[in-house]
Amino acid sequence: MSRVAYSDADIQGREYVIGLMKAAGLEPRIDPAGNIFGRRSGSDPSLRPILFGSHIDSVPSGGNYDGDLGSLSALGVMEALAASQTVTRHPLEMVVWAHEEGVAFERALACSRIVAGDIKPGDMDEVWNGMRRADAIRRIGGDPDRILDARRPKGSLHCYIELHIEQGGTLEKADVQVGVVEGIVAIDKYDAIVTGFANHAGTTPMADRHDALIAAAQLAVAVRDIVTGEPGRQVGTVGHLEIAPNAPNVIPGSARMTIELRDLSPEKLRRLGEALRARSRDIAASTRTTIELTPAHVTPPASASADVQSAIERAANARRWTTMRLPSGAGHDAQMMAQIAPMGMIFVPSVGGVSHSPKELTHWDDCARGADALLGTVLEMDRV
Amino acid sequence: MSRVAYSDADIQGREYVIGLMKAAGLEPRIDPAGNIFGRRSGSDPSLRPILFGSHIDSVPSGGNYDGDLGSLSALGVMEALAASQTVTRHPLEMVVWAHEEGVAFERALACSRIVAGDIKPGDMDEVWNGMRRADAIRRIGGDPDRILDARRPKGSLHCYIELHIEQGGTLEKADVQVGVVEGIVAIDKYDAIVTGFANHAGTTPMADRHDALIAAAQLAVAVRDIVTGEPGRQVGTVGHLEIAPNAPNVIPGSARMTIELRDLSPEKLRRLGEALRARSRDIAASTRTTIELTPAHVTPPASASADVQSAIERAANARRWTTMRLPSGAGHDAQMMAQIAPMGMIFVPSVGGVSHSPKELTHWDDCARGADALLGTVLEMDRV
Repeated sequence: MSRVAYSDADIQGREYVIGLMKAAGLEPRIDPAGNIFGRRSGSDPSLRPILFGSHIDSVPSGGNYDGDLGSLSALGVMEALAASQTVTRHPLEMVVWAHEEGVAFERALACSRIVAGDIKPGDMDEVWNGMRRADAIRRIGGDPDRILDARRPKGSLHCYIELHIEQGGTLEKADVQVGVVEGIVAIDKYDAIVTGFANHAGTTPMADRHDALIAAAQLAVAVRDIVTGEPGRQVGTVGHLEIAPNAPNVIPGSARMTIELRDLSPEKLRRLGEALRARSRDIAASTRTTIELTPAHVTPPASASADVQSAIERAANARRWTTMRLPSGAGHDAQMMAQIAPMGMIFVPSVGGVSHSPKELTHWDDCARGADALLGTVLEMDRV
Repeated sequence: MSRVAYSDADIQGREYVIGLMKAAGLEPRIDPAGNIFGRRSGSDPSLRPILFGSHIDSVPSGGNYDGDLGSLSALGVMEALAASQTVTRHPLEMVVWAHEEGVAFERALACSRIVAGDIKPGDMDEVWNGMRRADAIRRIGGDPDRILDARRPKGSLHCYIELHIEQGGTLEKADVQVGVVEGIVAIDKYDAIVTGFANHAGTTPMADRHDALIAAAQLAVAVRDIVTGEPGRQVGTVGHLEIAPNAPNVIPGSARMTIELRDLSPEKLRRLGEALRARSRDIAASTRTTIELTPAHVTPPASASADVQSAIERAANARRWTTMRLPSGAGHDAQMMAQIAPMGMIFVPSVGGVSHSPKELTHWDDCARGADALLGTVLEMDRV
């Protein structure tokens, strides 16, 4: 399913969810950023709300579980509590975040980011695909003129809980039912520019070449070797590579590539980055090219709260489900919420670790377990 | 200078050369393929003509010497013979080949190819940049309706001689003035398609990846290692590489690349190709990808005639210039002429081995030596 934020499909999906929320007796409220909230009162008006939910926008050619599972399970929690006439101490709020994926405006976690306070009025002037961001947000029922009112102050929530598919294969491989997220990894992103010399592929002896692709190729392999050279769950990826002039009969004169390193520990990322820098100097020297390795972006890690992690484990243990703690290698709205509230995330297994693909699949049993774990965690957190 | 075949700049260049030929007392004739010929009678009408020349079309952002030097030197030979009132035994013909570079219609050596007989009437229906090939050839004064009449029968020429810049750095490095081309290398071209599995760059553990770029990178390095793994002048190049989806946060799921191997010996190319195939199987296994390596095109080698090589050496030695024999790594119209006549090529040094670049340079002394060597070789071949 392709439900890119602000598209017609996204708007249809949002209307569908709003309909379901109304049918469940909630009064949906769209905040100025376009996020959809549904609130249920608690018995103690002095307590802060427990917020839980996920997003429903997707990437092009995305799957049916990324975001949707957490959003619909949040609604399921509300329905279950209503059906069982359970009264919680804390007010409960479910949320369907708008614009989580980094497709529209090339910006990810865009609307939870606003709620966390990372917003300037000028951001509304960004243009993507000929559409102003203000108009995009207006299109989904937000109010860009009051965008700053979407912010929620730090400390105003009891906690934030998000259920999501793992999007990796760790739980499936370990045959574990429920993942307890320790935190969302930090990302150090580098741009590498390799400069060699474009020349005739027939007339230039091998010894006289300054082949930018040979250097870039060795650098890509070095990323893998350095990242796998020490124990741990760190990952490193060269996802983007372009060479020029990119003609079969011309030795590549230049190459541009991105390098992404991810781990929970920024310290480890720094160490890997230094190793990569040293290796790139060796590669440049041996290929007689130059390699500029520049830090492009740093995303800090977001830790999950110890309290919420324990609450998830208590909920899972009570149901006799196996659990394991693991980092989230993907970004989530939860990392924005971690800036203003204790945050926790529940993962359920993704078949084959496939995500952002029409082949994305989480078995129905695992979906149901996830929703039930979310309900249990909300109730556990309501007690503390 | 960018004088791509059939462009306005190409046509201006052709008109300029035609004007020079007329000023030199030649009667330029355009054959049905668009090639420009200029003939000078010999004393013995029973002898076959000696043909010499080169091309004047270029690649985009090309240099000022590739083709132009040989074309204008051929004219210089005619002028020198007229000035000295020299009468040769054989008729002499200079030629300015149309459409040598592989830009237009993605086809190289296009019009000498026609003269060599490699043409079907249907070829005139090819379309490039919205232009039919018949119309392109008509634009430069050719006659596509009589295209088959451009063919010249095998055995109808005494020999073909072409002066060209080396386009590599071998002569300059060896400090040699005149290169005697042994032949034009064979080219074995392969297409490689690497299929891995695109997945999330954050959530997919390193051990679970099927990274098409890692495989492609190793294959590119393997091309270099295999080609340089035995002595000789063979070269190998990965000039074109594209990965998909080519997004920084997605593990590359597929890669397409071209591999070009060049050497005078087709046997050696076969051996290198087999080594590459074996290595690609290993790489595919270790990266858990598949690699399809398919032969895309085979260009046979074209040997220079022993007689013409000796004639070049005699001409150079008489002028006390140093010579060396070397292969041509680049394609030339001469390889088409080798199919119908004894062929020889004279190379002069390219500064830094740079070609197909505005930085292309051959020092004036070397240009003049080349033209004089061409004159001497024509006269040497006139004697045998």
